[in-house]
Order: sequence, then C-alpha cells, then structure tokens
Amino acid sequence: MNKGQLLYEGKAKRLYQTEQEDILFVEYKNSATAFNGQKKAEIEGKGILNNRITTLIFERLKECGIDSHFVERISDNEQLVRKVDIIPIEVVVRNIAAGTLANRLGLEEGTPLKRTIVEFYYKDDALGDPLINNDHIDILGIATKEEVETLYEQGLKINNVLQPIFKEIGVILVDFKLEFGRDKDGNVLLADEISPDTCRLWDAETKQKLDKDVFRRDLGSLTQSYEIILARLGGK
Amino acid sequence: MNKGQLLYEGKAKRLYQTEQEDILFVEYKNSATAFNGQKKAEIEGKGILNNRITTLIFERLKECGIDSHFVERISDNEQLVRKVDIIPIEVVVRNIAAGTLANRLGLEEGTPLKRTIVEFYYKDDALGDPLINNDHIDILGIATKEEVETLYEQGLKINNVLQPIFKEIGVILVDFKLEFGRDKDGNVLLADEISPDTCRLWDAETKQKLDKDVFRRDLGSLTQSYEIILARLGGK
Ligand SMILES: Nc1ncnc2c1ncn2[C@@H]1O[C@H](COP(=O)(O)OP(=O)(O)O)[C@@H](O)[C@H]1O
Ligand SMILES: Nc1ncnc2c1ncn2[C@@H]1O[C@H](COP(=O)(O)OP(=O)(O)O)[C@@H](O)[C@H]1O
Ligand SMILES: [Mg+2]
Ligand SMILES: [Mg+2]
Repeated sequence: MNKGQLLYEGKAKRLYQTEQEDILFVEYKNSATAFNGQKKAEIEGKGILNNRITTLIFERLKECGIDSHFVERISDNEQLVRKVDIIPIEVVVRNIAAGTLANRLGLEEGTPLKRTIVEFYYKDDALGDPLINNDHIDILGIATKEEVETLYEQGLKINNVLQPIFKEIGVILVDFKLEFGRDKDGNVLLADEISPDTCRLWDAETKQKLDKDVFRRDLGSLTQSYEIILARLGGK
Repeated sequence: MNKGQLLYEGKAKRLYQTEQEDILFVEYKNSATAFNGQKKAEIEGKGILNNRITTLIFERLKECGIDSHFVERISDNEQLVRKVDIIPIEVVVRNIAAGTLANRLGLEEGTPLKRTIVEFYYKDDALGDPLINNDHIDILGIATKEEVETLYEQGLKINNVLQPIFKEIGVILVDFKLEFGRDKDGNVLLADEISPDTCRLWDAETKQKLDKDVFRRDLGSLTQSYEIILARLGGK
C-alpha cells in the first residue's frame, strides 16, 4: 500500500490517501499538544509509542468482538485504517473523577464515580471542544438519535473491555476519549486512536500518572511513562 | 400571614418562614447581578417589577393547568409561596440562540433553533453553574431519572404555554431558566421566579431586549424595559 496525497494534518497524526479508496495511511507525529493546542512540544519517540500502543489496544478490542477502523501497523509510526466520515463528537468515558470533570462538579481528583459515565464534547477546536448534551447534538445535526445511543453504548462496552485489560497490567483506567465515524455503508465504527494521549492511566499501586497529564502538568518524561504502558501491554 | 425568621438570602430574593410550616414569605430585592455575581447593582423598583411580573406569569400558567409554588402576592415586593426542597438544577429552555448557547455552539445570536432545546445546569455558585448531562446528575445524586424526565418535559410544556402568551403581546420568548423543587409529598413543583431576570425577551418588531441583558450588556434602563413587559402583560 503506497502513501498517496496528504488528506489532513491534525495535532497528533497525518492522514494520507492510498491507492485503495476506503483505506487511509495514518502517520503518528511526535507532537504533543494540550489545553486546546495552547501548550505544544515535539517529543522524540512519541509517535512510535502511540502507534504501537494504539495497535495493541485495537487488536485486543478486536479479539473481544469490538471492531474498529484499524487494519494493520505497517511501520514504526504508521498504520493503515479504514476511512470513515468522522462524527465530530468526542465520546469521553469516565470511571474516576479527574481533569475537567473534577473541576466541573467540584470533585476531588481520584474520587471513584458511583458508576461509569459518558460525556459528549463537540469536536471543534475553534470552540474549545465544549461539553454538549443530546439536544445540542440534535440541533447541530451532527448525529442521529440512534447514532447517539450507539456512541453511548459503545463507550460503556469499550470501557468494559478495556478496564480488565488495564487492571491485569496494574493500571487504572481513569477515563478516555473515543472518536467514531461512519463507514461507507453508514455504520458507526470506532476510529482515531486509543493511547496514553487519549486515556488517563494511573499505576494501580503508586497512582503514578502514565498518560498525557505528564505533559499537561510537567510531571516528568512523557516517553518513559508511555514506554511503561507499552511494555506492560506486552509490546517491545 | 406574618413574616417569620429569615431562612435564606439569595442574589435576588429573601425567603422568610411564616406561621405555616409549608408556606414561605418571598421578598423581591432590588439587586441585579450577572456573570455569576461578578457584576452587581441596586436598581430602585426592580423588586416590585419582578414580583408583579412573576405573579402574572404564575397566574397565567395556573390558568393553563401548570401548577407552581405561587400562592399569592401580598405587597408590592412580597409574595407567599409553597415551601419546596429546591432541586439544584437550573432548567434552561431555548427557542433561539443567544448568550452562552450562541458562544458554546458558535451560532449567531438570534438564530432560531430547529427545535426547542432543554439544558441542565448544576445550580452551584462556587462552580459557576456548569452545564451538566444526565450522567452528571446521576452521579451527583441530585435528582432521580424520573425527576430528570419530569424537568425536561415540564420545561417544554411551560415553553408551549409561555410562547403564545408572549407572542400575543409582541414579545419573542428567546429562552428562560426554571427551578423546580420537591413539595412535602415529594412531587416536583415549579418554583422560584419567571421574570425578565430569568427570561430573554425581545420585542417582536424591533428586537429590542426587554430583559436582564439590558443590565448585563449596559443597554439602557432596566426598569424601563421591565415596565414594558409588565404593562404588556396587563399589569399596573
Ligand atoms: N479512520 C479515519 N478516517 C478519517 N479520519 C479519521 C480516522 N481516524 C481518525 N481520523 C481523524 O484524523 C484526524 C487527525 O487526527 P489528530 O491528529 O488526532 O487530529 P486532531 O488534531 O483533530 O485531534 C482527526 O480529525 C481524526 O478525527
Ligand atoms: N418555593 C421555594 N421553596 C424554597 N426555596 C425556594 C423556593 N423558590 C425559590 N427558592 C430558592 O430561593 C433562593 C433565593 O432566590 P434567589 O435570590 O433567586 O437566589 P440565587 O442567588 O440562588 O439565585 C434560591 O436558592 C431559590 O432556589
Ligand atoms: Mg486527535
Ligand atoms: Mg435566583
């Protein structure tokens, strides 16, 4: 499969066409960004780590019956995925209060939630990815009622699969962000990435942060943290 | 009915006990506040206007089969209401994009929404009354699933009654905020106030703002605007 025209460059990845209409080439960049792009850095090795971790997670999900856009990792920092029409909703699933949820509701970071919750954010950098409710989604016309239900249910289902995978390797899955798209038949498919950039992952013993909060909050070496996750997942 | 002990002083009203356990004395203050209390002023005559306007609106709602805490207006700036246990959720109903919705979704103020929407905000001054979704309400434990459905449906129902009332008097009901509480039998009851402090009201012809945005945005005399609403509603 050859890399064709650059289709889109985002904050963390570049998407390229391939000779096959419905397959894209994804290149993981070394860029780290936070706070809606206000904080930025280039971190040597980050692209490779996220490409590998995302691959392992999408493979595990597949084994557990959850399909995604992932096709194949083809190099250190590249993978092939199925092209979808991204639904501009970030689906955030949370088990423990942290980050903006802790701030929004006045909960102490680390407080376990009485049940897993799902939040929808409007994926729009110019607006700062605001929290939205089902009525907002409806008037924006960005997803149907049935799709919204699917996003919610898939969020919980993926959490149910990921939680034990991380638990097994001594990691607490605090929260994570998912993106979904419509494939050429209009079916909702899990897309984008699942990596320490898009999850909060804490060491179960020490509560050490092993995710992008290391970068957001200047807590040490990001790549060392991501390498711990990769190694525990059985990679490298 | 005599004014008993001061129970609570809010930004716009004071609540007093009466000799009757389940009846409260509400005194409308002249204070105007905006932006979560950051902007403040005392405006002579505001309390009287809101007490009268709220009274007229609760009476009209009653005629249309929508019960509320309202019992009786007993003086220029005082009324009696049924005591409830306030549910700390601000129920916002919107017909046209304005204020925080316009900002949140990047819509131009004045854009009609394709349908009426309902939003829930966590009534908590310290947190700045953040937008919340049904899952947040669940983990906060501030309302049951059934109550949330009632809040949503009551919001739409009250809109259906209020819209024609305002239309008749040449006023567009852009959006409004409701508060509900539980009465002594646990039933959800409409409470607080419905006034130009809690609604966005635009003159249908000129689009002149006749609500608290006059104060928020320094658009002229607040009492003159509120007097227009009172007069058109047939008061005074
Ligand atoms: N399978 C896919 N098909 C099409 N677009 C995708 C797919 N998976 C992810 N994307 C999109 O690729 C873009 C690049 O990713 P990223 O660099 O993370 O962007 P962003 O800066 O928006 O977070 C994002 O807009 C993402 O939604
Ligand atoms: N029927 C009622 N029973 C008990 N409390 C009420 C009732 N109606 C309104 N309240 C509460 O009265 C308080 C005073 O009103 P207000 O001055 O508007 O307060 P705030 O500053 O919270 O907006 C508010 O907390 C409101 O929720
Ligand atoms: Mg991204
Ligand atoms: Mg109030």
